[in-house]
Amino acid sequence: MSENPTVGGTARDRARLRTCQELARELLLVGPDGEDLKLRYLDVLIKDGIPRAEEPKDVLIVGAGIAGLVAGKLLKDAGHHVTILEANASRVGGRIKTFRATGDGQDGPFYDPEQYGEAGAMRLPSFHPLTLALVDSLGLRRQLFYNVDVDPDTGNQNAPVPPVVYESFEDGKVWKYGEDSPDFREPVKRFNSWIRTNRTQVRRGEYAADPSSVNEGFHLTGDEARITAAEMVNQALESVRDYYSYIEDGKRVRKPYAEWLDGWARVIRDFDGYSMGRFLREYAGFSDEAIEAIGTIENMTSRLHLAFFHTFLGRSDINPDATYWEIDGGSWQLPYALAEDLRDELAMGERMIRMEYWDPRHDGGAGEDVGPNGPQVAVHTVPEGDPQAEPKVWTGDFAIVTVPFSALRFVQVAPPFSYKKRRAIIETHYDQATKVLLEFSRRWWEFTEADWKIELDSIEPGLYEYYQRAGEEDAEAAFAAAHNGHRPPPNLPKVLLGAHRSVDSDRISAKQLEAYRHSPLHRASVRPATGCFGGGSTTDNPNRFMYYPSHAVPGSDGGGVVLASYSWSDDAVRWDSMEDHERYVHALRNLQSVHGRRIEVFYTGYGKTQSWLRDPYAFGEAAVYTPHQMTSFHLDVVKPEGPVHFAGEHVSLKHAWIEGAVETAVRAAIAVHEEPPPPPRAEPEIRPEAQAGRERRQEAMSR
Amino acid sequence: MSENPTVGGTARDRARLRTCQELARELLLVGPDGEDLKLRYLDVLIKDGIPRAEEPKDVLIVGAGIAGLVAGKLLKDAGHHVTILEANASRVGGRIKTFRATGDGQDGPFYDPEQYGEAGAMRLPSFHPLTLALVDSLGLRRQLFYNVDVDPDTGNQNAPVPPVVYESFEDGKVWKYGEDSPDFREPVKRFNSWIRTNRTQVRRGEYAADPSSVNEGFHLTGDEARITAAEMVNQALESVRDYYSYIEDGKRVRKPYAEWLDGWARVIRDFDGYSMGRFLREYAGFSDEAIEAIGTIENMTSRLHLAFFHTFLGRSDINPDATYWEIDGGSWQLPYALAEDLRDELAMGERMIRMEYWDPRHDGGAGEDVGPNGPQVAVHTVPEGDPQAEPKVWTGDFAIVTVPFSALRFVQVAPPFSYKKRRAIIETHYDQATKVLLEFSRRWWEFTEADWKIELDSIEPGLYEYYQRAGEEDAEAAFAAAHNGHRPPPNLPKVLLGAHRSVDSDRISAKQLEAYRHSPLHRASVRPATGCFGGGSTTDNPNRFMYYPSHAVPGSDGGGVVLASYSWSDDAVRWDSMEDHERYVHALRNLQSVHGRRIEVFYTGYGKTQSWLRDPYAFGEAAVYTPHQMTSFHLDVVKPEGPVHFAGEHVSLKHAWIEGAVETAVRAAIAVHEEPPPPPRAEPEIRPEAQAGRERRQEAMSR
Repeated sequence: MSENPTVGGTARDRARLRTCQELARELLLVGPDGEDLKLRYLDVLIKDGIPRAEEPKDVLIVGAGIAGLVAGKLLKDAGHHVTILEANASRVGGRIKTFRATGDGQDGPFYDPEQYGEAGAMRLPSFHPLTLALVDSLGLRRQLFYNVDVDPDTGNQNAPVPPVVYESFEDGKVWKYGEDSPDFREPVKRFNSWIRTNRTQVRRGEYAADPSSVNEGFHLTGDEARITAAEMVNQALESVRDYYSYIEDGKRVRKPYAEWLDGWARVIRDFDGYSMGRFLREYAGFSDEAIEAIGTIENMTSRLHLAFFHTFLGRSDINPDATYWEIDGGSWQLPYALAEDLRDELAMGERMIRMEYWDPRHDGGAGEDVGPNGPQVAVHTVPEGDPQAEPKVWTGDFAIVTVPFSALRFVQVAPPFSYKKRRAIIETHYDQATKVLLEFSRRWWEFTEADWKIELDSIEPGLYEYYQRAGEEDAEAAFAAAHNGHRPPPNLPKVLLGAHRSVDSDRISAKQLEAYRHSPLHRASVRPATGCFGGGSTTDNPNRFMYYPSHAVPGSDGGGVVLASYSWSDDAVRWDSMEDHERYVHALRNLQSVHGRRIEVFYTGYGKTQSWLRDPYAFGEAAVYTPHQMTSFHLDVVKPEGPVHFAGEHVSLKHAWIEGAVETAVRAAIAVHEEPPPPPRAEPEIRPEAQAGRERRQEAMSR
Repeated sequence: MSENPTVGGTARDRARLRTCQELARELLLVGPDGEDLKLRYLDVLIKDGIPRAEEPKDVLIVGAGIAGLVAGKLLKDAGHHVTILEANASRVGGRIKTFRATGDGQDGPFYDPEQYGEAGAMRLPSFHPLTLALVDSLGLRRQLFYNVDVDPDTGNQNAPVPPVVYESFEDGKVWKYGEDSPDFREPVKRFNSWIRTNRTQVRRGEYAADPSSVNEGFHLTGDEARITAAEMVNQALESVRDYYSYIEDGKRVRKPYAEWLDGWARVIRDFDGYSMGRFLREYAGFSDEAIEAIGTIENMTSRLHLAFFHTFLGRSDINPDATYWEIDGGSWQLPYALAEDLRDELAMGERMIRMEYWDPRHDGGAGEDVGPNGPQVAVHTVPEGDPQAEPKVWTGDFAIVTVPFSALRFVQVAPPFSYKKRRAIIETHYDQATKVLLEFSRRWWEFTEADWKIELDSIEPGLYEYYQRAGEEDAEAAFAAAHNGHRPPPNLPKVLLGAHRSVDSDRISAKQLEAYRHSPLHRASVRPATGCFGGGSTTDNPNRFMYYPSHAVPGSDGGGVVLASYSWSDDAVRWDSMEDHERYVHALRNLQSVHGRRIEVFYTGYGKTQSWLRDPYAFGEAAVYTPHQMTSFHLDVVKPEGPVHFAGEHVSLKHAWIEGAVETAVRAAIAVHEEPPPPPRAEPEIRPEAQAGRERRQEAMSR
């Protein structure tokens, strides 16, 4: 009875292979005639736009995340009449969200009003050309995001950023946006950041040179102890990559078109039933301990039960040395730059609770707002953020729904969507991701020991030495006991949290001070200077992944916001049980266990945290399929339902990435544009409701 | 490279089989000499207690859930000195929690102060003898919980409840507690409750008689359309059950001892790597559509990616017609009855943030509070609920830690626990479960159409007919338009929510009224009278599972609290993104889609909701393993760490059940009792901190 996915075989096997062939085209953006759809989308989004509409359509777009905004802009620029309904009354961008001072006179989230931190999307890979070219075309400034810490004295970033380049699978075609910048050079990676697991702490560079001390902490023995976790995974993935590529001169190269496409179809067929855990255990044959090491260091543990494919795709790029970018000033600027041109189209604080559409496949049942001679789509919304506002009905010829399926689950739809679409809305697994960000008044992660000595002794002479020798004891206890023959500095501040002159320690809340005092640090007191410019550290403590800012914020006061904890799935859920304020002290303590106690003097008392699971607009981090969900219903996720089209990261096979949301938005915009025009109206459309929404939206957008 | 679990084979295979043999003993409670540990635990807990301690030990118990309370009571009764530390300042019981008026002068959660509803554990199966006998021995009144609705005119529940009976696997041994009650008879099951999926609604009895209409809604064809979802699952499980049992006279019978035990070991070996989804798809060979039907009706969809074993164990009992019980007055009484005898031992509002223990395996590193000649365990706590309180250190000879591993993840432990225990604390998957309860002033789910006519027309003559004929239109809209040639009752209340005289509609918050008005019901207006005494309905709308109360609450005012939505895992997470107040209107609307619009007249405006994922003490619903977690580390979950023992549902293989928590509590209490006494103290223990905690606890317990 076990799976036997041989070619040929039963009718069900053949149907499955066809499904996988279609999925491979979805994944690789191969059009019906073998054309590279990515090329088309790049041209449409960045260069040519959609051709001018001869008969403008009324298009309702639900959701002002990046997908809704991109689709809205393309359709508006083509002359269509667009309305974008956004449930959030105060913000566009969805899961692109930056904690920042909004300049509306209210206090910002951090002590230094120039500081910001990303609640959601934070890095843009070089292999996501739609996203990067969109950033450039909107005039936003791109800068490198250091996924690995660098030597700041190397590289040349004064030159303009290099162009966005996409090498098509169509022979020899290369798409390019921007001017060559021969003088631009990335800095050299230094691998100074930390791996701390099972109480063993080494720098990434040390781990790469000799993985044994870390690996032995996971009880690995023999061959498994001698290679890094990344190498273990990569070796295991090689035979999967062989389905569609081969190695030439030490580099992975795509097989010829037909074999490449077929190879991907077979990968999907053979592995979509696998969870990552099953793949590592059953297919790759790793021991439990190896999987624990891989899971911890390569961030797979919490998603072992989710689809192999999700994690595989995240690592399967041909060039493993991808460059990452960020937007100077914060990711929020991307949606806001798009929204700038859509002020008249945006209706903020309008939450969809019901959608009606006219589809000749159904004989009626859609409700009274739509019909063959009237608007084809009606969206009922309730107001958020404005107690005076009333529910509204918005009508149009077509709709593009971009909200997560987890949120769409609570929307009435009449007539019901097709069977498989309904199953996808019910079942699509949404993952959790939680971030805790902490602000510091100095960029201590960049410090050398000499920097530490200067800064600590500036608080009180001898404090540097004091922290060095407080050793495994609690520093306050050491102060009280004056033990170990070591005398504390005579004027040691009573509270060392935020003791540096750059911190206004009155701004640290009594609640945080008390919680901090109540959870004394034991051990973990002394660590070497980190010396990291960007990059991130990994630990098996609850923080899991820590990221240092790649760049100082221009105009800021010498400090920065550290992403103290970034976790997914089961790792994230543990944090989601806590209220926000409880998370900061835990995150700080766990940060100290990797970086030493002394970082406390720079903590400003300002933290921010984002639990995407608990977010009432996002309803989760992103779609991350469980095994078999892709073959079971992804093709149905993509399909329009009569006049209703879909876009968003969940509609793509680049789940959780901006690029996926943008791809599907461009596709949906083109599709709506190319739809046959709706039949002429029996009577002109009346939409008195829209005006109030427009007024409120303009207020929100002016922030 | 794929898994090949043949007997013999490699050293790894043999080690795995040994692990699975040990796990089978854990699962079946088989002692080292083949004795039935359940018998021993029953005798200890209910009849004999633990023998009187010759040398009393100081035992710290962390967590006052059912496990901590049971262990505490057993050890106290044996003469040991017990301290139970509970983080929650206001409540014992953990995930046994009843929404109820606490009699402290504050308003209760519902309009009728006699009403209550279960936030957590709500049903006690007849095959959980420890739990049932404990309930009985504490003098609590048991009554039937109708997992399936019944005919209230049948059975005899005036007779005393039947005794608790446990048939041991040891030949012929039967354990019994309570007197025979020959006159007690369960009422007849009626299967009147609903299945509503894909817009097809039938009663459970109708579905059993002819599954085709529901099954065809899932696009099932051929043989799959003709059997119920339960039958499909049961057929698929038969070959697994054959490992350890056989069929005799139409009933499943255990194989002889050795084969039975070995059979379970092989089941674990062969299937622990399976998710439920993989089992149904790859092993049982079901189509996607069959899995969708099974998942929807048998509540598996949201857990398809979790371990096969969890769902299998929930269904694998030999007698599928198990009886369920509940505690008259609410499940909360079980922990509170235990806590009554533990007033002096309970310290409320003490959250463990650090644990130190002395273990000769480690050379030092435990901290200064413990040592070979001092206490072996120290627990550091911070206060909750009392801003004046200070952190404390509690010391003892032994500890029993009962808090979920998801919460233990944030506790510092010195020295660190063994490697595999740490992995279990990091990795154990905790599932989500969310409930939404709504109070109604009349027990409409028991109504006949005649009852409905009387009650509705008592609001305004003609209202019954009005609801019947409002049909697919919104009733208020119908009122305004007076269309369909149907005239609404002349004095129709403007707001029908809570319109019945039994509701004080002034108590319905403006927020809820507004939200209700803003989300009009479309279609789903007319449904037949439900006529259900207890039992529950199933739907594919977000509510998923609905339960009607089994009994009227004595002294209540004719109404009841409906569990309008009970969902797990991915189904639950969708609700967890919403704030509490948003859930009530969604839950009511979805309840109406199954039961008709007219139930609105009885809604009191009072709802309660529990998201266990967001609970800051529970950190999740319960341990539910992902594939392979059981074989990877469950045996390590169970093992003590030096003087630190573990108990709780997660330490058992009856995850999420009270019975599992109780089993492990009895085991831990016996183990601590039987530990060699600690070495004599260098100096007497001083615990001045304990007093304040005791005072606060007494206050909390008096509620």
